[in-house]
Amino acid sequence: MSDKKTPIPEVPEAAHSNLDSMLSRKFGKEVANYFAGSPLNRVSFLRPDTSFLSQALRHDTSKFILFNELNPLVKAPTELAYVSYKDVQPVVGNPYQKPEAEIIDDYNSATYHPQLVFLGLNQTNGPAAADFKYKEHYHGQPFWALDVTPKESVTTACKKLIADVEGKGLYFAQGRMQLSLHATEAAMYAEGRHLLDWNARNPFCGACGHKTLSINGGFKRTCPPKDLAARMHDPGAPATQRPDCATRTGVSNLCFPRTDPTVIMAVVSADGTRVLLGRQRRWPKYWYSTLAGFLEPAESVEEAVRREVWEESGIHLGRVVIHSTQPWPYPANLMIGAIGQATPDGEAIHLGHDAELEDAKWFELDEIREALRIGTSGLGEDPGPEYQEGGLRLPPRTAIANQLMRAVVEGFVGAEAKI
Amino acid sequence: MSDKKTPIPEVPEAAHSNLDSMLSRKFGKEVANYFAGSPLNRVSFLRPDTSFLSQALRHDTSKFILFNELNPLVKAPTELAYVSYKDVQPVVGNPYQKPEAEIIDDYNSATYHPQLVFLGLNQTNGPAAADFKYKEHYHGQPFWALDVTPKESVTTACKKLIADVEGKGLYFAQGRMQLSLHATEAAMYAEGRHLLDWNARNPFCGACGHKTLSINGGFKRTCPPKDLAARMHDPGAPATQRPDCATRTGVSNLCFPRTDPTVIMAVVSADGTRVLLGRQRRWPKYWYSTLAGFLEPAESVEEAVRREVWEESGIHLGRVVIHSTQPWPYPANLMIGAIGQATPDGEAIHLGHDAELEDAKWFELDEIREALRIGTSGLGEDPGPEYQEGGLRLPPRTAIANQLMRAVVEGFVGAEAKI
Repeated sequence: MSDKKTPIPEVPEAAHSNLDSMLSRKFGKEVANYFAGSPLNRVSFLRPDTSFLSQALRHDTSKFILFNELNPLVKAPTELAYVSYKDVQPVVGNPYQKPEAEIIDDYNSATYHPQLVFLGLNQTNGPAAADFKYKEHYHGQPFWALDVTPKESVTTACKKLIADVEGKGLYFAQGRMQLSLHATEAAMYAEGRHLLDWNARNPFCGACGHKTLSINGGFKRTCPPKDLAARMHDPGAPATQRPDCATRTGVSNLCFPRTDPTVIMAVVSADGTRVLLGRQRRWPKYWYSTLAGFLEPAESVEEAVRREVWEESGIHLGRVVIHSTQPWPYPANLMIGAIGQATPDGEAIHLGHDAELEDAKWFELDEIREALRIGTSGLGEDPGPEYQEGGLRLPPRTAIANQLMRAVVEGFVGAEAKI
Repeated sequence: MSDKKTPIPEVPEAAHSNLDSMLSRKFGKEVANYFAGSPLNRVSFLRPDTSFLSQALRHDTSKFILFNELNPLVKAPTELAYVSYKDVQPVVGNPYQKPEAEIIDDYNSATYHPQLVFLGLNQTNGPAAADFKYKEHYHGQPFWALDVTPKESVTTACKKLIADVEGKGLYFAQGRMQLSLHATEAAMYAEGRHLLDWNARNPFCGACGHKTLSINGGFKRTCPPKDLAARMHDPGAPATQRPDCATRTGVSNLCFPRTDPTVIMAVVSADGTRVLLGRQRRWPKYWYSTLAGFLEPAESVEEAVRREVWEESGIHLGRVVIHSTQPWPYPANLMIGAIGQATPDGEAIHLGHDAELEDAKWFELDEIREALRIGTSGLGEDPGPEYQEGGLRLPPRTAIANQLMRAVVEGFVGAEAKI
């Protein structure tokens, strides 16, 4: 897709610091990429149950990650800050006081509700994990994401909350380069950011053009059949019936969060001695990465990899193998990492099809190995002290691109089976 | 996600008949699932070029797959029918007579354009592949999908076209059970159906609620900044300026087709001797399949697999390995097939979390092996002649579920590496 931006790894190198421990052998040879590895049990089937949500929301152990314009509240670049229900109560109240069906029935498009997302229960969080219980099977510390951007009816309450937390030395990290969260927190942040962004991007129904309502703890948007907005000016006004909407007559994917599958691939030469990397014009000098692009409708992952590689570089691939996947919350990607092998007569580079890359080049494995050692950094960061001007620069370990290159130089091609 | 329907393999068994030849060793051990394996080069970067689209549209070799209410025109259940540009010209005209920027500039929300999708160039189609050429690098027989549902301004033209093709003995296959296309055609049909469905589901902008316009050969919807609809009644009326829309200020994923990543998994017991299968209430008696569900925001594939398996069956998984992927155009899924292994103390089945399954059960490998031999069929079809009432029934080879079970009984666990 020529004008759809492909994601690039704008996350600092330091953020990887505790990812190695997550890459423990718990699940065998699985590669857990940054932004995966959440400690939360999402108990997704409990989301329509407002009795559950209401109890979890108001529980003493409940923790809230605050977002202002999608920037999270932090103590430091590596550490999220959390607040309690009593802190957010003036902003959010308790939106779960009625069953969901009644909430939909009482829909009023003129009312603003700050977006709240139930992230899940942390069952691994020491004593706090045992405190909140629901029914026979469910316990854990409830975690939430809340949009406190000062707006509409909650402008004053949000400003006060923001002043309070900033008074304690906490701050909203501006943009992703101010963030290098430890891996566990990065995963919770990614879930909150992805959901808040999806809700904010989709205030209207794609099927009928009317405003929609967030339900299911922030994981669904529904198009209510009627609207009480007329009552804002006339308390006795009847509800307005809205036109029929296709999303109401069955299950519609439009009602659920969108995640865009994206392929990203380390391309090796037919003889396995070189790796193809490309660069975009806006990247720093000497900075290259693996090729990437969006998977299209009616493609398998392998087909998307072959198409993107040919479109961007002219190279023809034979075998393609999936390596690992990475959730990427900017705004809503699932990065599917693969390793592909060029055919012997398909290695010639041609940049004239799609205009996405400024350059694409074959690199020897040794050069990649050395750059992985001394030349990695986030975009906008400097590489390490051993790096020398003119040497190859590569994305940080938090990027799946880095993991793919690492897999190649460490012998993924020809490695033993993973299961 | 408890009320979001997970896809099930409603495709007849016979449709697989020529898939084995696609599973040739061209790409090594890759499993090409049904609906993948398209012969078309999408040349996605040419889609914004209306000069290219216009020439391809009107070319003598151009072929159109017609859809009426998303049902494709066929000669037989196994074979699509195609028509030529002269057949569809009264319906579609030539929508590519101006550069795309001018088309957006002249947007009129009161005008109906039947949805047309450029599927790609077939470069493997014998002599026809050499006939159409564009610039130095591109050639092939152009393939299109066109919605001929009789509607709005094209009602009469569509009815006439439908009567003409039906007069030749062709027909629109009603629902997926009337379809068992050969694999190559299934892939082109899947691309067309997915894109037509996405366009039809999204006539309005999710960001601002206004009507959107199909561009990029059917692969993008844009929210034009102005609208000439007022001219319908007053030819001298000025264009109406529409409010600002977030999709216009950057690249927005809302403008591009949606594909929902879905996980589907064969679960093996800790000792590798049994496979977990589940069934939904509406399936035929004795019919079971692998578990499946939608991947959520900020999950890796392995995490989604573990979550879904626990939510639906109570079983805890350790190792998870991705097997293959399958595009699934009902309406817009990418099925990501995996094989997961239960932990030794996590094999107890509990159906009380999510209410999705009526039953889940462990089956011995031999029972699965036998059912793969004699008990497979599409939903709604009868199993083969050797099947005996009471035996396990399974989905057909066109379903990735079948391929996952096959991989397990054929020794995927412990198999050698794929690259």
